[in-house]
Amino acid sequence: MSFSSAVSGLHDAAVPERVGDHAAQRLDDVRSLMARELSEVEALIAARIAMGVAPATHSAAHLFKAGGKRVRPMGLLLAHACWSPIDDKARGLAAAAELVHMATLLHDDVVDDGDKRRGLPTSRRLWGNAVSVLAGDLLLVEALRLGSTADPTTWRELVETLGRLVEGEVVQLRGRLEVSLDEATYFEIIRGKTASLFEWALRSGAREGGAPEAAVMALGELGGHLGVAFQLVDDALDYEGDPRATGKSMLADLCEGKVTLPLIRAASVDYDGVSKLVSDVREGDAQAAQTLAARVRSSGACEEVRARALQETARALACLEGVPDCRARDVLADVARGLAARVS
Amino acid sequence: MSFSSAVSGLHDAAVPERVGDHAAQRLDDVRSLMARELSEVEALIAARIAMGVAPATHSAAHLFKAGGKRVRPMGLLLAHACWSPIDDKARGLAAAAELVHMATLLHDDVVDDGDKRRGLPTSRRLWGNAVSVLAGDLLLVEALRLGSTADPTTWRELVETLGRLVEGEVVQLRGRLEVSLDEATYFEIIRGKTASLFEWALRSGAREGGAPEAAVMALGELGGHLGVAFQLVDDALDYEGDPRATGKSMLADLCEGKVTLPLIRAASVDYDGVSKLVSDVREGDAQAAQTLAARVRSSGACEEVRARALQETARALACLEGVPDCRARDVLADVARGLAARVS
Repeated sequence: MSFSSAVSGLHDAAVPERVGDHAAQRLDDVRSLMARELSEVEALIAARIAMGVAPATHSAAHLFKAGGKRVRPMGLLLAHACWSPIDDKARGLAAAAELVHMATLLHDDVVDDGDKRRGLPTSRRLWGNAVSVLAGDLLLVEALRLGSTADPTTWRELVETLGRLVEGEVVQLRGRLEVSLDEATYFEIIRGKTASLFEWALRSGAREGGAPEAAVMALGELGGHLGVAFQLVDDALDYEGDPRATGKSMLADLCEGKVTLPLIRAASVDYDGVSKLVSDVREGDAQAAQTLAARVRSSGACEEVRARALQETARALACLEGVPDCRARDVLADVARGLAARVS
Repeated sequence: MSFSSAVSGLHDAAVPERVGDHAAQRLDDVRSLMARELSEVEALIAARIAMGVAPATHSAAHLFKAGGKRVRPMGLLLAHACWSPIDDKARGLAAAAELVHMATLLHDDVVDDGDKRRGLPTSRRLWGNAVSVLAGDLLLVEALRLGSTADPTTWRELVETLGRLVEGEVVQLRGRLEVSLDEATYFEIIRGKTASLFEWALRSGAREGGAPEAAVMALGELGGHLGVAFQLVDDALDYEGDPRATGKSMLADLCEGKVTLPLIRAASVDYDGVSKLVSDVREGDAQAAQTLAARVRSSGACEEVRARALQETARALACLEGVPDCRARDVLADVARGLAARVS
């Protein structure tokens, strides 16, 4: 896609004023609007994977082909487009954001003994833990290579972001099956493991696009809220979602020992009952898992979590205040609303 | 240690002209000569580990406290000292080199299902695979943080080096228990997984010390040869070494499926016999492992491998030609000779 057509794709009359009637549909509309731009980023990622060594490349390609929302690269490109047309540098950073995300998924599947991801068996199920660890390392290196062409601040912040990602994962590991996990720790975990990379993506997009410093910070903040909202919805979906739509096993978090906000909220009204069920689940009682999930749903916890996600979305939208009025800004707002409303 | 005493430690009359009578003893002598300098680097590493999050920090600290030769930081500091006194920046990079090495060890133990390292149970045995994967990621991030203060070329080369390390590991994984592994592939593996980091350490030390470009390249080359020699000796020791001295299980490589040069050489004279024994080992026959080890030793393969290591050492020493005549240069030569002659 040429430089100019990329811009016009985001500024032209071809984009309807309101993208879809329902917020949840917006994300799909935005994705098709940005399809060509994202396919260039995907081609870049595929080329980077292909440069690696088999069998690590098979493992990485399997994960990549299984799809994904590509919401981090999308956010980065849109933040960039608020100030400048999307260029190769922006695409490279967008690819880096997705590669970091993919690297953490490969390592997470080893950490969590995960069996299913994006509707398919995990790479570690197909090629084993060893390949997944090394494939994750390989993708991380590719992300760093791509990131090294950026502004030195963006580059240093990428390393800091990796640190926050890993720390979030470690804190999560420590809290495995701890029903008494407090909300502050839960938010520490999701700010680290999810929001930090969204924050980096949006901030870097704005910076590389030439945004003034205050706007760079505001877009970073927007990314952070977006990431928290995204993870909150993900965690609600694990209890309320349709596995055919999410591509994950139902209650995957619970089975991997992850204590998320829906469970914490349900435990806050019936600690003993929920604790007992969690310890039964820990002992492999499949029936207890179903009972626990029903208990969480009937407690209204999922609705509470979605309400909290909408709060974060509102905060994210407020960060758009200083951003120049343009189509990319509107689309970014649609992405934020779409992520909060999604059902898969 | 003060700036001036660090220099005098490498330039003073306190250092004997020949460090020890036997090459193998030289490494210990050099290590005690550099003890104060290395302990500052170790303090830096310990501080970086402590900044992380438990239980990943426990896992990393366990590996760190188990010791190690610290030969990468040593090489980096000595290369630096050939041109300039050792300073905080050099110590930071030396710590980065060791942290990268430690990160690969933590991931390797997961990749190889390793049970013993440096005479102690591996971190993954004590805290599990999940913690080791994340602890490795954490150390990698700390290394990148430290590296980001360096010259941009040094920094970019660190990322390239990580890529080579991982690729070496992947090629090794692919060749598991392939007795027909050719020597070219074996050297590709060890150049990637071991020599690349030695190369980076020596080259970066020289560059940050202010060496002219030709010398920077020569020191990198020296590091590469040193790394190959180091790995060759390591691989010979796996068949000939005393487990009490090496701190590893005897035949650890073989048990992890790693086909190294001693085995390749032994197979080159008796392919069928060695193949049969390897497939028995693969099926868990402990007696076959002992027989195979004895077969490798009696074939003279270990002596051949050590001779090859001495060749690499000679090439390494030849790279010192353009280096200014100074004590650090002499000590570096002692390190090279010591590594080739070591028995643990």
